[in-house]
Amino acid sequence: MAEKRVNKVVLAYSGGLDTSIILKWLQTTYGCEVVTFTADLGQGEELEPARKKAELLGIKPENIFIEDLRDEFVRDYVFPMFRANAQYEGLYLLGTSIARPLIAKKQIEIAEKVGADAVAHGATGKGNDQVRFELAYYALKPDVTVIAPWREWDLRSREQLIAFAEQNQIPIAKDKRGEAPFSVDANLLHASSEGKVLEDPSVEVPDYVYSRTDGPESAPDTPTVITITFEKGDPVAIDGKKLGPADLLAKLNELGKVNGIGRLDLVENRFVGMKSRGMYETPGGTILHLAHRGIESITLDRGAAHLKDELMPKYAELIYNGFWFSPEREMLQALIDKSQEFVTGDVTLKLYKGGVHLIGRTSPYSLYDQDLVTFEEGAVAYDHRDAAGFIKLNALRLRTLAQRKKKLGL
Amino acid sequence: MAEKRVNKVVLAYSGGLDTSIILKWLQTTYGCEVVTFTADLGQGEELEPARKKAELLGIKPENIFIEDLRDEFVRDYVFPMFRANAQYEGLYLLGTSIARPLIAKKQIEIAEKVGADAVAHGATGKGNDQVRFELAYYALKPDVTVIAPWREWDLRSREQLIAFAEQNQIPIAKDKRGEAPFSVDANLLHASSEGKVLEDPSVEVPDYVYSRTDGPESAPDTPTVITITFEKGDPVAIDGKKLGPADLLAKLNELGKVNGIGRLDLVENRFVGMKSRGMYETPGGTILHLAHRGIESITLDRGAAHLKDELMPKYAELIYNGFWFSPEREMLQALIDKSQEFVTGDVTLKLYKGGVHLIGRTSPYSLYDQDLVTFEEGAVAYDHRDAAGFIKLNALRLRTLAQRKKKLGL
Amino acid sequence: MAEKRVNKVVLAYSGGLDTSIILKWLQTTYGCEVVTFTADLGQGEELEPARKKAELLGIKPENIFIEDLRDEFVRDYVFPMFRANAQYEGLYLLGTSIARPLIAKKQIEIAEKVGADAVAHGATGKGNDQVRFELAYYALKPDVTVIAPWREWDLRSREQLIAFAEQNQIPIAKDKRGEAPFSVDANLLHASSEGKVLEDPSVEVPDYVYSRTDGPESAPDTPTVITITFEKGDPVAIDGKKLGPADLLAKLNELGKVNGIGRLDLVENRFVGMKSRGMYETPGGTILHLAHRGIESITLDRGAAHLKDELMPKYAELIYNGFWFSPEREMLQALIDKSQEFVTGDVTLKLYKGGVHLIGRTSPYSLYDQDLVTFEEGAVAYDHRDAAGFIKLNALRLRTLAQRKKKLGL
Amino acid sequence: MAEKRVNKVVLAYSGGLDTSIILKWLQTTYGCEVVTFTADLGQGEELEPARKKAELLGIKPENIFIEDLRDEFVRDYVFPMFRANAQYEGLYLLGTSIARPLIAKKQIEIAEKVGADAVAHGATGKGNDQVRFELAYYALKPDVTVIAPWREWDLRSREQLIAFAEQNQIPIAKDKRGEAPFSVDANLLHASSEGKVLEDPSVEVPDYVYSRTDGPESAPDTPTVITITFEKGDPVAIDGKKLGPADLLAKLNELGKVNGIGRLDLVENRFVGMKSRGMYETPGGTILHLAHRGIESITLDRGAAHLKDELMPKYAELIYNGFWFSPEREMLQALIDKSQEFVTGDVTLKLYKGGVHLIGRTSPYSLYDQDLVTFEEGAVAYDHRDAAGFIKLNALRLRTLAQRKKKLGL
Repeated sequence: MAEKRVNKVVLAYSGGLDTSIILKWLQTTYGCEVVTFTADLGQGEELEPARKKAELLGIKPENIFIEDLRDEFVRDYVFPMFRANAQYEGLYLLGTSIARPLIAKKQIEIAEKVGADAVAHGATGKGNDQVRFELAYYALKPDVTVIAPWREWDLRSREQLIAFAEQNQIPIAKDKRGEAPFSVDANLLHASSEGKVLEDPSVEVPDYVYSRTDGPESAPDTPTVITITFEKGDPVAIDGKKLGPADLLAKLNELGKVNGIGRLDLVENRFVGMKSRGMYETPGGTILHLAHRGIESITLDRGAAHLKDELMPKYAELIYNGFWFSPEREMLQALIDKSQEFVTGDVTLKLYKGGVHLIGRTSPYSLYDQDLVTFEEGAVAYDHRDAAGFIKLNALRLRTLAQRKKKLGL
Repeated sequence: MAEKRVNKVVLAYSGGLDTSIILKWLQTTYGCEVVTFTADLGQGEELEPARKKAELLGIKPENIFIEDLRDEFVRDYVFPMFRANAQYEGLYLLGTSIARPLIAKKQIEIAEKVGADAVAHGATGKGNDQVRFELAYYALKPDVTVIAPWREWDLRSREQLIAFAEQNQIPIAKDKRGEAPFSVDANLLHASSEGKVLEDPSVEVPDYVYSRTDGPESAPDTPTVITITFEKGDPVAIDGKKLGPADLLAKLNELGKVNGIGRLDLVENRFVGMKSRGMYETPGGTILHLAHRGIESITLDRGAAHLKDELMPKYAELIYNGFWFSPEREMLQALIDKSQEFVTGDVTLKLYKGGVHLIGRTSPYSLYDQDLVTFEEGAVAYDHRDAAGFIKLNALRLRTLAQRKKKLGL
Repeated sequence: MAEKRVNKVVLAYSGGLDTSIILKWLQTTYGCEVVTFTADLGQGEELEPARKKAELLGIKPENIFIEDLRDEFVRDYVFPMFRANAQYEGLYLLGTSIARPLIAKKQIEIAEKVGADAVAHGATGKGNDQVRFELAYYALKPDVTVIAPWREWDLRSREQLIAFAEQNQIPIAKDKRGEAPFSVDANLLHASSEGKVLEDPSVEVPDYVYSRTDGPESAPDTPTVITITFEKGDPVAIDGKKLGPADLLAKLNELGKVNGIGRLDLVENRFVGMKSRGMYETPGGTILHLAHRGIESITLDRGAAHLKDELMPKYAELIYNGFWFSPEREMLQALIDKSQEFVTGDVTLKLYKGGVHLIGRTSPYSLYDQDLVTFEEGAVAYDHRDAAGFIKLNALRLRTLAQRKKKLGL
Repeated sequence: MAEKRVNKVVLAYSGGLDTSIILKWLQTTYGCEVVTFTADLGQGEELEPARKKAELLGIKPENIFIEDLRDEFVRDYVFPMFRANAQYEGLYLLGTSIARPLIAKKQIEIAEKVGADAVAHGATGKGNDQVRFELAYYALKPDVTVIAPWREWDLRSREQLIAFAEQNQIPIAKDKRGEAPFSVDANLLHASSEGKVLEDPSVEVPDYVYSRTDGPESAPDTPTVITITFEKGDPVAIDGKKLGPADLLAKLNELGKVNGIGRLDLVENRFVGMKSRGMYETPGGTILHLAHRGIESITLDRGAAHLKDELMPKYAELIYNGFWFSPEREMLQALIDKSQEFVTGDVTLKLYKGGVHLIGRTSPYSLYDQDLVTFEEGAVAYDHRDAAGFIKLNALRLRTLAQRKKKLGL
């Protein structure tokens, strides 16, 4: 059944039933040594059970890798992306997309360390994640063999999976026997849900699907007001308290959750060609996004801001499609980062029943600063008579066009 | 004082104190016949008092033009712009910008009709509106003389303006003697406020500035659920009830107002080169914007949607800067309109305390339709094995890059 | 061997050895009825031999379709593309890319007419053409079965192909027994060559590869001067003589050929992910491209021209990648076509030893026309004092930035 | 007459009649100290006569600044721009535009050094150069006073200028008494000519206008073949001989001149709003442009190359419009420079009678390298079966669209 010969494979392993089945399937199908990699990206699950589970399934201790990536994730992936104000299709904050490259990078690093020739992931054959994982694998290790069990195996139904698990002594939690009413992906930036009960885009998302946010209607009747401090485009403190990347995002998540912030019901266009409906919860990210726009509004020049806005859709699309490790994403990042030198200051926001409302911003580098408009010795930089000339020359080509029309009697 | 000789001028006349002063100033400075044009764009003021006022100031009845432009405004300006999902600097729905071209167009039409050689407006010399008015004037009548009193006259303070008014027997309402704490522009799409009390961007907008929206906190505790029906990209009905353009937008405004929707506190970059802080209230527009994105999400192909998203910032900038009547705006409009043929269907939204939440969408032309994914005789269009090839070829160039790096020992 | 069951297949058939082998292979592998389609796109070969060959291989007369598409090709594909000044990767005039959608469209039309359920083409598995053919097939007939023999069969070498031909009584011309030193694609717009002797990008293209152009060095010592007349963006006459689309392009090809014009040695990036080196000869197209830019230079407004320039790379990429029948290409075409209304007039060019030199242009709709710059009664539209204000306001944001730097001591 | 009070002004001084008149006019009008700055940017004139002339006109020796900027010009302005493959309106290599920021920068540096409060230039009020100079001045010294004599003085004709010169004892060369038949700007990158005899865009540029290039027809009958070596996107050697930036460009100019390369007759759109017709001679730049594209073609990844192509028009427009010292140009430069790390290697070109023909390219970092396409143990990276999946998923959305059409009976 195995198309390629493989000696050692590094599997992105959550410790859950599905990746445990994959683990076994890799052993039985490829007859290869399996190395597991379990990462904490803030999905909200403990990691040690994954170690136990892996050991139980026969993985040697030296082949079990567990790592807390929360700070790296937020600092090197989430924050750079938020510098760009990235939103896919105008609304989606890319919470799933941005986590994949980091997991893939770590798998490849481990593969290099343990001398593995293959990597494997648990993403299905219809989604975007398989693309994101595999583009990253190939970009970092061009000769790697990629195993995507969901595209390869013959297990066609939940029953077959469960049967395979039973045959292979994989413990099955009671609630995992049946098919889940929807599937979830989570990390420190967001939780996404899709499938089954969410498939009909005309039907409202049921309440029980939400896990990261309280409903706007059950949020407190009193607004919460917070101030986020930015340095060079990245948030560094909340209400004056300095926080590391992961802690800061966790704090924003907490604030967002309580206030019912960050729910998004979206029909989006997958890279693989079809539309899908998903529900996203990005409580902290939703606050951060608006706050970053706010601090940029007083510290970024118009030329810089508009250039960023024009390129944002392309940048977001690259991340969504899995091209984090591509020259064009890195080029755009260089452009974006260049703009953030003075994006420093405070933004004050009101959080209230699902809404984030920007109510104030200050910066030592503000370009709005009244003093700036006045130059040297009281000479005012803006003379309203200049506007006449400005308009006249901007209008010149339009007048020429109009004159042509007139001449033609149009 | 008058730089140019003028025979007859068409003034954009609101009937208020400022444009009444301009009216008199035009008469005394240019010694020319003044024609007034007063338009109803849904700003919420009656027009007949403007007629009385103009007559009182000596304007001949045949020189007084009053027109209800609400439907034309919404149908030919607001809706085409919303087809583009236009937002300036990521957030502003362009409520002021979009009204100027229509007023200018009507002034020019009247100028042609009455044989006027000049037009005048009441916009100041520091803002965007002067540009928007004048670019439109020139684009429609290249030989027109433009008079911008605020850039020309010597009236340097509120006191001088009041004195001029008194000298010229212009009635002054009591509350107009002092300087207003902020200035307002309003039409059916929005109200904007700026200046004075709003100038410090670190200070929250005071409650009394809002005129079009209730505060989220005073909105009802129960959400309002509505369904908007679209045809070819434009909204045509609310909760199944067909409405004309102006009535539909008015209805959305009402729904938005009550639910505290559409407030925006923004520092933006003006075309004339400085930053300014404004507060916008766009209750109906805020709902419409999300609804339009929602109906597009199931009816628009990815290629079309992404192209629109990439071009949106440029389109919004053109409107903001006053280039409505420019070839490039018209070219972009042709592109956008081409995409809207099947943007038809229903979007259901929940309005709640300042938030608009999309909860469902359906369309007879949905591209999401499950049946579409299956083609002829049970042959399935999507084979997950195809994904392997798709990824492999997308990865090929990245692998080649990685191979180069490896070869170089990088 | 055949993966899918097929009743009747429409094959893009040139009459040459390779597509004859495909014809037989389809019959033997799929056991299906084969319908041949042979098109004249100006490749410079007669079509009747293809009919004879098809009959010889057992195709029923009613299953042989032969069509002269030259005018349709130039009018509906080449000219629209030239309105956009399209060049892939800055240099390539897309001669091969633009022909594929038309051939595919005709195959699908025939398939609908004869009730075929499949189509087949002779493009290899490593190139762009397979993508272009198949994207067009699917876009026009979503349920069609696509057969790409070069990706499916076991014929792995020239020897095997020849053996297959011999087994199947396919006549083999003497010079076709060995492998060709390079492969050629040709139509009225261009000839392209690639493979074998061209594979090393450091080695100059050998002289014998060129078929459509004389070498610059053997071109006449006296320049040829011609005038091309455009109407709404399309060429309609040469030296005052009206010509239909195909005849006009043929005439330009003749003029270009003699003068050594239109050779391009290029390393390009294929859609399927690798680089390839090709040699293109586009004699008439090279002249036409510069001429079109020339007529646009006096008839197109700056806003329109710059918007076109910014979107051109995307438009060219879409055509190169095979997305002619996509909403985004059609949207861009709507934008482009909107701009061409007044792109009418004459362009004079000097052709000389490989070079095209624009030496003059006139238009009844010229925006350059001196008279246009002067408006009404001697009032000059351009007052150089306006420039001061224009510059001042354009500089305002840069001054503000500089002031910030100064304040910070940077 | 002087609107502003000025103590000391730094004048961009060529030593010619016009800037000598300006020098005197500044002294008499502003009663200020004049500091002259004369730069060698490769315009082909000696600088010492300018010193003599300035002394003659009463400038103190310590107020005379003369500098050879050729290497700085080419290294820090021309080469970075060529990394972008910048062409304004598809054709113009921006030879004049790119020189202005450097001159302005030096004037400001001198102003800071000598404590001057003003700068002056000799550009007219209708052109782009005034904008380029002044935007750079303001961007570097926001409080500077800018004097643009051509916009300010009353000298309305050649006669008045000559009369002013005579009154002020400015020596007048015989051939400068009448009006020149065209005006010229020159530097190491190019010479541009415009005005008078060039104003009618339908009339061919007369032979005597050309100064930097021989005519293609008088070029040698034998081609010249050269090889240019690039390192990180910049040319560093010709035919294996290392050359500094200015020497290298000078050498290319020489090669281009003899072979009739680099003439461009163009109608372009000025930033100030009107069209103008100019003639450009850019012999070395024309060669360099194609050579750079050539080396990029084998060393740059597709994603990087296409992103550069899409952004090029905007980048070129920024330089043309005078925004060299703007955040958006610097951001784009960061993006471009990021891409050039491996743009290293040799390009071979044939120069022949006005044409530049790329005939070969090699690079130690080539992405075309055959070996790269094969990975590990003979496993080929490209499997043509992958193409099927690649096409299928790319087609999926088009098939869905087609299915919708079919369902609707369209």
